[in-house]
Amino acid sequence: MTLISVLDLAAVLVFAVTGALVAARALLDVVGFIFVACLTAVGGGTVRDLLLGRDPVFWLAEPAPVAVAAVVAVVVFFTHHLVASRHTVIVWLDAVALSVAVAAGVAVAHGLQQPVWVQIVLGIVTGCFGGLMRDVVCNEVPLVLKAGELYVTAALAGAGAAVAMRELGADGLWPLAACTGMTFLLRAGSI
Amino acid sequence: MTLISVLDLAAVLVFAVTGALVAARALLDVVGFIFVACLTAVGGGTVRDLLLGRDPVFWLAEPAPVAVAAVVAVVVFFTHHLVASRHTVIVWLDAVALSVAVAAGVAVAHGLQQPVWVQIVLGIVTGCFGGLMRDVVCNEVPLVLKAGELYVTAALAGAGAAVAMRELGADGLWPLAACTGMTFLLRAGSI
Amino acid sequence: MTLISVLDLAAVLVFAVTGALVAARALLDVVGFIFVACLTAVGGGTVRDLLLGRDPVFWLAEPAPVAVAAVVAVVVFFTHHLVASRHTVIVWLDAVALSVAVAAGVAVAHGLQQPVWVQIVLGIVTGCFGGLMRDVVCNEVPLVLKAGELYVTAALAGAGAAVAMRELGADGLWPLAACTGMTFLLRAGSI
Repeated sequence: MTLISVLDLAAVLVFAVTGALVAARALLDVVGFIFVACLTAVGGGTVRDLLLGRDPVFWLAEPAPVAVAAVVAVVVFFTHHLVASRHTVIVWLDAVALSVAVAAGVAVAHGLQQPVWVQIVLGIVTGCFGGLMRDVVCNEVPLVLKAGELYVTAALAGAGAAVAMRELGADGLWPLAACTGMTFLLRAGSI
Repeated sequence: MTLISVLDLAAVLVFAVTGALVAARALLDVVGFIFVACLTAVGGGTVRDLLLGRDPVFWLAEPAPVAVAAVVAVVVFFTHHLVASRHTVIVWLDAVALSVAVAAGVAVAHGLQQPVWVQIVLGIVTGCFGGLMRDVVCNEVPLVLKAGELYVTAALAGAGAAVAMRELGADGLWPLAACTGMTFLLRAGSI
Repeated sequence: MTLISVLDLAAVLVFAVTGALVAARALLDVVGFIFVACLTAVGGGTVRDLLLGRDPVFWLAEPAPVAVAAVVAVVVFFTHHLVASRHTVIVWLDAVALSVAVAAGVAVAHGLQQPVWVQIVLGIVTGCFGGLMRDVVCNEVPLVLKAGELYVTAALAGAGAAVAMRELGADGLWPLAACTGMTFLLRAGSI
């Protein structure tokens, strides 16, 4: 299992929780929870893979992402009444998932020897599109587009940090850790 | 003409009627009817084909699906005032189209030797995404996500039935008939 | 630089202005302007390229489209308060962008030796989907689907004009000029 699939899987897991909690707000049944959780979890990475022409997309190559998202959705289905303030939890977990997914997007584009600006753009796409699909499909106002919140800005800064670290000679986990940290700090600061 | 293209075409035809009726609710002109009908009719299969990397997507390979959807839209444009309760007709035809499209999705994935879980997921995708696009674009509450209705659940059960029948040794039309029947029964029972 | 990339770039530029103005209505920050501008600018061409299996999509092959859209977004961010009636400007610029994008879509499909009906369909897709994504993501009523306006009809007539001119022996710029003129005239006449 490569570093990239670990990152993809971590983003899938946290995004799946947010998707399942949005499904809870929409009063769906358990399969509806799974549907929204999977859409949120793999949405951003799917758009990234389609744009890059990766064939097949990451979650068709192995069952782990869909399986993780489905299990998460079922767990949330049976426990979501324990959460006092669903909206707060969604917003904070979405920030965590965004931070990890931006790093995953940058890493995939870097692994395919894409130029630096493509790595940044695909980092943003991977981070933002899962949550965007969740909100559009469930008729919520997209978090990406809420006035006064640094969402795309945080993703841009994080992707930029990863690229800058690598230019400065760091490699392996460091650029991705910088990306996740930078994205989360900015996003969390604006919540 | 293969069994798969017959199934795709049948789903296209019925989804096109639902798309055209939603266009009627939005008071569009005849080309608007054709646009929404085509989007609904080929939307699910297009997402399936993009995910699978099928090149080109099914409705670019031959003109039949788009032609059928366009003709259906024109017919509905001139006759939709005869329908007393548009919403009821949309919901029921959508259930028929869902049932056929799930079978088409499973059949395409099976034909490409995809594993069983991919067949189930792509059956659900093919069934649900056409109607989802129709509802999102036209600002209706997505049928997929209405509380208290078995939509994705019906698709999941149908796709599961197809796969189970094939494991039990049935082939040809039988697994697809089981899929369509199971999906429609569950969906219709929840309307 | 080919004729097709000039057309794509012109459509990108004008669509980016409309996207940035919609971002202004949603009170986003400057990176939010860039995000919506890029989504609107490359959305239609991206769907066209994915459907055609062009790999990579046009704006990953060279940085110009994304760079143009980003610069446009920043300029609009600092000047949009000078615009008296944002909605009017959006609608008229959207008509210009639609006209150019339909021609770009037809030209790309023609360059790939696609049949005539595919050229027409992909002209419509390229013209309509960028604005559609902008409106769906930003929770505006899609211009494509406003009752009483010729939107898809104008795109269809324009694409048809391009194909007809070419059948009559015209080539080079003429069919594309006919396409742009026809689309804009019909669309402008209905505003």
